[in-house]
Amino acid sequence: MSDSDLNAETSFPTLNPSERILLGPGPSGVAPRVLEAMAKPTLGHLDPEYLAMMDNLREMLRQVFRTRNPLTLAVSGTGSAGMEACVANLIEPGDAMLVCVSGVFGTRMRDVAERCGAEVRAIEVLWGETIQAEQVAAALAAHPETKVVGIVHAETSTGAHQPLEEISRLVHEAGALLLVDAVTSLGGVDVRVDDWQIDACYSGTQKCLSCPPGLSPVTFSPRAWEKIESRSSKVQSWYLDMTMIGRYWSNERTYHHTAPINMSYGLYEALRIVLEEGLDARIERHRHHHEMLKAGLEAMGLTYIPERSLTTLNAVRVPEGVDDARVRSRLLAEYGIEIGAGLGPFKGQAWRVGLMGHSSSRRNIALFLAALENLLVDEGLSFDRGAAQAAASAAATKS
Amino acid sequence: MSDSDLNAETSFPTLNPSERILLGPGPSGVAPRVLEAMAKPTLGHLDPEYLAMMDNLREMLRQVFRTRNPLTLAVSGTGSAGMEACVANLIEPGDAMLVCVSGVFGTRMRDVAERCGAEVRAIEVLWGETIQAEQVAAALAAHPETKVVGIVHAETSTGAHQPLEEISRLVHEAGALLLVDAVTSLGGVDVRVDDWQIDACYSGTQKCLSCPPGLSPVTFSPRAWEKIESRSSKVQSWYLDMTMIGRYWSNERTYHHTAPINMSYGLYEALRIVLEEGLDARIERHRHHHEMLKAGLEAMGLTYIPERSLTTLNAVRVPEGVDDARVRSRLLAEYGIEIGAGLGPFKGQAWRVGLMGHSSSRRNIALFLAALENLLVDEGLSFDRGAAQAAASAAATKS
Repeated sequence: MSDSDLNAETSFPTLNPSERILLGPGPSGVAPRVLEAMAKPTLGHLDPEYLAMMDNLREMLRQVFRTRNPLTLAVSGTGSAGMEACVANLIEPGDAMLVCVSGVFGTRMRDVAERCGAEVRAIEVLWGETIQAEQVAAALAAHPETKVVGIVHAETSTGAHQPLEEISRLVHEAGALLLVDAVTSLGGVDVRVDDWQIDACYSGTQKCLSCPPGLSPVTFSPRAWEKIESRSSKVQSWYLDMTMIGRYWSNERTYHHTAPINMSYGLYEALRIVLEEGLDARIERHRHHHEMLKAGLEAMGLTYIPERSLTTLNAVRVPEGVDDARVRSRLLAEYGIEIGAGLGPFKGQAWRVGLMGHSSSRRNIALFLAALENLLVDEGLSFDRGAAQAAASAAATKS
Repeated sequence: MSDSDLNAETSFPTLNPSERILLGPGPSGVAPRVLEAMAKPTLGHLDPEYLAMMDNLREMLRQVFRTRNPLTLAVSGTGSAGMEACVANLIEPGDAMLVCVSGVFGTRMRDVAERCGAEVRAIEVLWGETIQAEQVAAALAAHPETKVVGIVHAETSTGAHQPLEEISRLVHEAGALLLVDAVTSLGGVDVRVDDWQIDACYSGTQKCLSCPPGLSPVTFSPRAWEKIESRSSKVQSWYLDMTMIGRYWSNERTYHHTAPINMSYGLYEALRIVLEEGLDARIERHRHHHEMLKAGLEAMGLTYIPERSLTTLNAVRVPEGVDDARVRSRLLAEYGIEIGAGLGPFKGQAWRVGLMGHSSSRRNIALFLAALENLLVDEGLSFDRGAAQAAASAAATKS
């Protein structure tokens, strides 16, 4: 190889990512302890030290999911891999599945279910709304053959917070299994897998758990496991087949695929941080900071899209006459703050402001409100300068 | 939450993994630069800085695969996810696929293909052997409807090195596509995607690229892309659907799933290291160190399983009367060295010693030979003490 070839090949720049304030729909900010954990020495996936860590990881995941389910683990892919793992393991070709659609992630679940060969029926509501228990009752009455009902607890595309308890009761009365997307709620909004009788639940690491993206915590109830164990066909995804992955995470330790060692170090440390704070205290922190941000945004005249907003994700309408993309790009360039754009029907219409995990702090709220006010003034809006900060601060005292 | 609950929840120990010398079938040792890269600040998956990094990552992957394929990227899962991505995208239900089976990974590919609905036929040879071109020619003559031929370039379970050029010619003459597993070869053994006309190729990060496990580099030829684009059915895996993932990695940047940001930092830095060394020099280093280790092991009376051994993975027979598991566990406990056990028919019969990427060093060879000699003497074998070191050292001068 000639010198010039060598130079061509080494022209890739040193990695030097900026320190962003991550206030979008995920990834959220990552604590230094978690980043440091990811840089610890790589162990083999069958090393006794690694297997002991996995046991602790599984136990911490159970605490965060509030479950005793034996089959609780982290899938080696992002949240969407967790979605596919839940659907592909529970569904056999021809099984009837009811999917509740109120945004991007319900739509995605329907697509995944169809690809798994399910006979899919959907309940669709306007984006930003939540599914009503009566709609589920009616759909189950019309289709008593339904085996699985899928629903999104925290719809990241709209910020809507879906109640689950009454729906869970209806699903189980109908003899079906309940599959829940908790990607944007786990670790920030109350998720009670055992109390609410959720049969399969998946999340992501990069939201309220504040670990980089790359793994998907999942848990399956004994009822779900019974359905998986009694399948007459193989799970269509080899990579996501819980009958094999579960054996690696059990005391059998049967090799399936090489675990993403350093990613799981990150999740391990992120979960330690969650449990040190305490789940209840953490959920309360997310609520408290949401109230502050909401008071600030509303003082600036911004309005929320969903009636029932998540505390972890604030989806607000872009004010009339304001250039959505310009504001987001100036937030990033001038303040180093990332927020999310609207998706689907909300493209150009919505901002999605996440206050998740490590990012949910009073400091970030103060900074974001100040930056947004400055930019909106540049966009031609007029404000009572400082009203947003005052409202947020008052909410801090009140709530 | 009471204080005692809180204490229960914080009882998970600090993460403190030992510094192993990773000489198994993967993961291999990871350079400090790569670990440091993984700990850099997390960016959003649509951040312009991250997108620029992805472009460079894609270009480096092309150089390492020796290809100009536009569709070259890292799948957000480990090597087995890359296998499933290749099979699931190329195969539609009912497509005839020929799978070459000579160990665990050919067996796995057959299983994946069946789950994707392929009509699978297999060429099977004894573990440790390679597939002969004549066998492929005969199978293609018997089944001219074959659409895809899958083969493992570097069979991690046996250490066998499969020649591909002649087989590739036969596959294309028959109008089929060639799918290659390069998990244990890419970055350590010559892999020439364009020259050898490979249509789909996948690898893992944790072998000769010496990045922690978690991503799977893949590349698809224009012929493969044509087959994917003309599918009449959706790819059965949403998570691994190249028609969507390719758009996120292209200039369209359409959101598919949240990329595993910090894992891709690790791969970025690992690829920079590969290209700084130079692919040819790196392949030569693996060859040179393999010759040294081989000379040392043979001087101790050990014999190789495959006739055509990979330079990256040395599969040798456990000497008669030696306790396989005890030796491996003492290597780990007393010397901090990991090697691999045998799988399938080689369970208890083989050791798999990897010299991959960062782990392929003269220092590691000297250490491993010394440690193994000590342990085998304890197991009752007698040696001309030092003969292994002398043979390895002589091979270093010779080769």
